[in-house]
Amino acid sequence: MQQSSPPLDNIAELLETGDPQAVSDILANAHPADIADALEQLNPDQRPIVWEMVPHAQTGEVLAELGEEVFKDLASDLENEDLIDSIKLLDIDDIADLVPDLEEELLADVLSAVDPQTRDSLGEVLSYPEDSAGGLMNVDATVVRDDVTLEVVLRFLRQRGSLPQQTDSIYMVDRANVLTGILPIERLITSPIEDTALTHRLENPVIFSSLDDQETVAKAFADYDLVSAPVISEEGRLLGRITIDDVVDVIREQAEHDIMATAGLKNEADVFAPVAKTSRNRAVWLGVNLITALLGSWVIGQFEGSIQQLVALAVLMPIVASMGGNAGTQTLTVMIRGMSTGTISSVNLKNVLKKEAMVGVLNGLLWAVVIAVIATLWYKNVELGLVIACAMVANLVMGAIAGVFIPVLLQRLDIDPALAGGVALTTVTDVVGYFAVLGLATWFLL
Amino acid sequence: MQQSSPPLDNIAELLETGDPQAVSDILANAHPADIADALEQLNPDQRPIVWEMVPHAQTGEVLAELGEEVFKDLASDLENEDLIDSIKLLDIDDIADLVPDLEEELLADVLSAVDPQTRDSLGEVLSYPEDSAGGLMNVDATVVRDDVTLEVVLRFLRQRGSLPQQTDSIYMVDRANVLTGILPIERLITSPIEDTALTHRLENPVIFSSLDDQETVAKAFADYDLVSAPVISEEGRLLGRITIDDVVDVIREQAEHDIMATAGLKNEADVFAPVAKTSRNRAVWLGVNLITALLGSWVIGQFEGSIQQLVALAVLMPIVASMGGNAGTQTLTVMIRGMSTGTISSVNLKNVLKKEAMVGVLNGLLWAVVIAVIATLWYKNVELGLVIACAMVANLVMGAIAGVFIPVLLQRLDIDPALAGGVALTTVTDVVGYFAVLGLATWFLL
Repeated sequence: MQQSSPPLDNIAELLETGDPQAVSDILANAHPADIADALEQLNPDQRPIVWEMVPHAQTGEVLAELGEEVFKDLASDLENEDLIDSIKLLDIDDIADLVPDLEEELLADVLSAVDPQTRDSLGEVLSYPEDSAGGLMNVDATVVRDDVTLEVVLRFLRQRGSLPQQTDSIYMVDRANVLTGILPIERLITSPIEDTALTHRLENPVIFSSLDDQETVAKAFADYDLVSAPVISEEGRLLGRITIDDVVDVIREQAEHDIMATAGLKNEADVFAPVAKTSRNRAVWLGVNLITALLGSWVIGQFEGSIQQLVALAVLMPIVASMGGNAGTQTLTVMIRGMSTGTISSVNLKNVLKKEAMVGVLNGLLWAVVIAVIATLWYKNVELGLVIACAMVANLVMGAIAGVFIPVLLQRLDIDPALAGGVALTTVTDVVGYFAVLGLATWFLL
Repeated sequence: MQQSSPPLDNIAELLETGDPQAVSDILANAHPADIADALEQLNPDQRPIVWEMVPHAQTGEVLAELGEEVFKDLASDLENEDLIDSIKLLDIDDIADLVPDLEEELLADVLSAVDPQTRDSLGEVLSYPEDSAGGLMNVDATVVRDDVTLEVVLRFLRQRGSLPQQTDSIYMVDRANVLTGILPIERLITSPIEDTALTHRLENPVIFSSLDDQETVAKAFADYDLVSAPVISEEGRLLGRITIDDVVDVIREQAEHDIMATAGLKNEADVFAPVAKTSRNRAVWLGVNLITALLGSWVIGQFEGSIQQLVALAVLMPIVASMGGNAGTQTLTVMIRGMSTGTISSVNLKNVLKKEAMVGVLNGLLWAVVIAVIATLWYKNVELGLVIACAMVANLVMGAIAGVFIPVLLQRLDIDPALAGGVALTTVTDVVGYFAVLGLATWFLL
């Protein structure tokens, strides 16, 4: 990739070798997103020093690009005036994004610092849930009346002298501000200028209602290759527009969530949070895991006599539990992903279950044979091998079934499957795995 | 969300109730992406039936939107001529995306069916790795000479009558086709028309080299809020352009990969693959897990005598292994995510290690106390409680250290950390967990 601005990787080094002027020079030409990346990678105590060197025109954009945890940390080190000066010049949707991370007092100061029109628009955007189309939109739509010709639109735009970023279409409204059409810029500049704007409006436009959730928005942008789309009220009035750059952030955050949640972690917050906070956040998750692990141990505890008679059981049972957990996690991962992308729904759930169960049986049989041979050779005990083999098949099938039903069940209970699915699944496969090995051995071997 | 086209959810139902006309009607007005979604959700044997009803003008786009597995499945059911007719009208980059999934013979037929110019362009795109900027680009850039005025550009565009999708800028080249500037459409329509195009070119444009990898491209699009960007050769010649819709697909695929890989699964392929293929794919992963589980069992096997003397060890050791695995997975997840988004790099790796180790110590101590109390009460044995507690601290710290180093090591070895990290980590925490519990018990209790 080529870009004329210099790299920011060596800022930390330049600071340590005592060359602040070089850092200033680099920051002067850098993109806000790159400055934000560089700040995040610095030690917390270096951040305020570098922040002071960020050109004033960029400070707002840099704040908007920072992760929540680093933003809060940095904000606590700065004068409130500094912060407000930086924030008040941002786009409405960027300010709205920062609001949840601002202390109440500071928020009040920001609101009184912005101009009245911005304050009203901000109030509008903040009145919608953060993860709705309304919370995602900006209020910078370019609007014309729907009875004009392309020539008039073009003249209007040239008078304005500039357009908001990511403007690929002009919105047409009637006197009541009801959206009546979307005019793609592409048609504006390739069609005869004497045509009316309405003639060239989009057929089948995608239009969001303010309360559509952001998953719907993201899927529509991805499916229909949108760059921007309008948001309207229940009465059809134009409220604002959503742009692809914000949708890309939503898609990245969703992915981040799905990945982090499986380990019981919150979004990126975790990387830059202080030790105490991170420990506290993660402790909860480990506590839940301890309880589920104790459940497994309790099952083992019921068969202490059997283990004492045949220690091989203690050696082999973790294998069955682990294989069931792994097979089940594969099914679970396919399910969670399929449910969140919409490829798996109630329409084809039965097929998925049938398939996953079959895969469980096949892989169960395969690895049952392998483990039976290993156990028989290891302990010179064919019956032991058979018991472990049966337990293996049972646990892999159980893993598949649990992998299908657990996420469905959790979703019905309104619990995030990405967060709780893994724990729930391994609890099932641990308990069933231990019980199958120890139970079968107790009944048939001892 | 509002859209005038009807929903496709009930296609399967309509087919079963024998109302093919209703299905046809729905498909006639549907977006190709929605048709592709609907096809994916159908039973494999229903797909060819519905495919026949897709309006001919849409078939290419629908194929381009299908996942690899469903595409291959459907393609095998269709006449080659049908397929070629559908494919040959697609954009170059969409054809290029399908190429890896086509049988060799069919590919030859497609290449001979397209017009010579398309064939040349396709050859160009296919000559770059699939995951490079060159492989991602399309060849539909709108180009003007760099010595013209805005008025000339506007006249040229109006004569063309249309622009490729996602065109937010016009590229300027010299006589040798070397890229000399990027003219945003926004400036074209808001600046005085007598100005030269060069006056209004972008400062600091982002330009990709054909061999940039797609992660670099995706990060730049997300960071700099791009809609499209040019791709050039080493000599600076304009080769094509990358558009945000393809980048969104890359971002979604990356996320999909990161999520699926942790369970040893390939991208979405898995959901729709036949049972035999899925079983085979997953069996490899389960085999790897079996080997690592056997390693843990081997460690346990070394202490059979100790377990026979004190069965409580068999009951409690899985808890220590499991807690270490969970704590380590949290660190691992943060590391993998941070490395793939660039927030963790060699610059701050030392800080991350220090922090994660501290978190491991703190949470280790916390849960050590809890498990010590539980073990002591359960078995009325304070020494046992102490041994388990020490093992817990050791394994949580080990999990943190392994969680930091394993992904770094894997990356140096050019092994995908998302794929192999989890197995490697739990192998470490299982082995260390079992060894700590059984070893400490053997030396201090028995």
